[in-house]
Amino acid sequence: MVSTEHTSKQFDAELEAVRARVLQMGGLVESQIRLAIEALVSGDVPLMNRIINDDHRVNAMEVEIDESCNQIIARRQPAAGDLRMVMTVIKTITDLERIGDEAEKIARMGKLLAQRNSLILPRYTEIKHAAELALDMLRKSLDAFARLDLAYAAQVVRQDELVDEEFRTIMRYLITFMMEDPRTISTALEILFVAKAIERIGDHAKNMSEYVVYMVKGKDVRHVTVEEIEREVLE
Amino acid sequence: MVSTEHTSKQFDAELEAVRARVLQMGGLVESQIRLAIEALVSGDVPLMNRIINDDHRVNAMEVEIDESCNQIIARRQPAAGDLRMVMTVIKTITDLERIGDEAEKIARMGKLLAQRNSLILPRYTEIKHAAELALDMLRKSLDAFARLDLAYAAQVVRQDELVDEEFRTIMRYLITFMMEDPRTISTALEILFVAKAIERIGDHAKNMSEYVVYMVKGKDVRHVTVEEIEREVLE
Repeated sequence: MVSTEHTSKQFDAELEAVRARVLQMGGLVESQIRLAIEALVSGDVPLMNRIINDDHRVNAMEVEIDESCNQIIARRQPAAGDLRMVMTVIKTITDLERIGDEAEKIARMGKLLAQRNSLILPRYTEIKHAAELALDMLRKSLDAFARLDLAYAAQVVRQDELVDEEFRTIMRYLITFMMEDPRTISTALEILFVAKAIERIGDHAKNMSEYVVYMVKGKDVRHVTVEEIEREVLE
Repeated sequence: MVSTEHTSKQFDAELEAVRARVLQMGGLVESQIRLAIEALVSGDVPLMNRIINDDHRVNAMEVEIDESCNQIIARRQPAAGDLRMVMTVIKTITDLERIGDEAEKIARMGKLLAQRNSLILPRYTEIKHAAELALDMLRKSLDAFARLDLAYAAQVVRQDELVDEEFRTIMRYLITFMMEDPRTISTALEILFVAKAIERIGDHAKNMSEYVVYMVKGKDVRHVTVEEIEREVLE
């Protein structure tokens, strides 16, 4: 817990249960992303369908955790650090749900790519690399949330620049590809949307890390520079 | 107010002030989008720079309203409809802030398009049409919030399908363009990202309308079909 102002053991247990559910939801979302990239690379359409069908599980967890937070606020009237924790959870699950949507989008693009009798066989080397980075950010932001670890949170914010740079690299490479052979344009655009989904996963992980700084420090760092966040974290 | 359980006039005034600020923030974001499209179509780089520089105003409003909501929760301990209203505000401002980011992205793409000695002079007919739709959704979702108007909210959810369809139309048209003349690929991709930003504005407006249904009905409709939302609203 961030603060220990409350005395009720039951209240502690409720907060702990909500935190545990957020980490479970994070685990599910991480797995959806990992599977979506695996399915994309291997062209595994049944796996893509499973990922698309499983998105409702992520959505259901968001609704359930949101409802728990509302009940905690209404019944327990949390203050200070406890309230910040609940608010952080409410924002975090919105980003987790949207990461889940990106997994679904990657699976849908994967289906288009698998079904197209493609003229190029994409190697996905760069996509895999960008996805590893985004997954690392997601894991670190969940760890930062679990352990109130600001050093991890600051790392994630810094890493987001790398994912953005990866996206630009992939885009340049796809443009070259399209210009050399215009028949690859549709395929290249589908890969571009996969790259965009990965870039957005990085954005959401960054948001989550910024909420952790708010939760621990009580300071809103969503719209400040990386350098300011690093300074805040070191203080 | 959704409920009248609280008795304090001061509390009423605080809730009313927060609602008014959300509508102000919505007005600012709407203006940012409108100006971004105007600047794009006319190639007005100074206006694009102004839009990019003004994004911090949207961010500052998000932080300020968020802080007001936290204070209301901590001090006033709202319940039932009042709590739902505060929670709706917290979620709504996140979407409004991200719509602001899309305005900034459109302005940045506009700068690239204006600075490129373009081989094609885009007419932007389809982009303007899609943007009008998305702006209409944004206005309606703000009206739905202001007046607790569920009919408007349901309309917005339905309109999101139209914006998605517009996006697909623009994409098909750009693919044809790129295939006919590969020298237009970079320009076409920039226009595609503008179309994507407009599609995302529609998504955010849809989110906001779903929160209004939650605020009024106490029912979470984020992950149900349009038909179910329409049924819920008519009940």
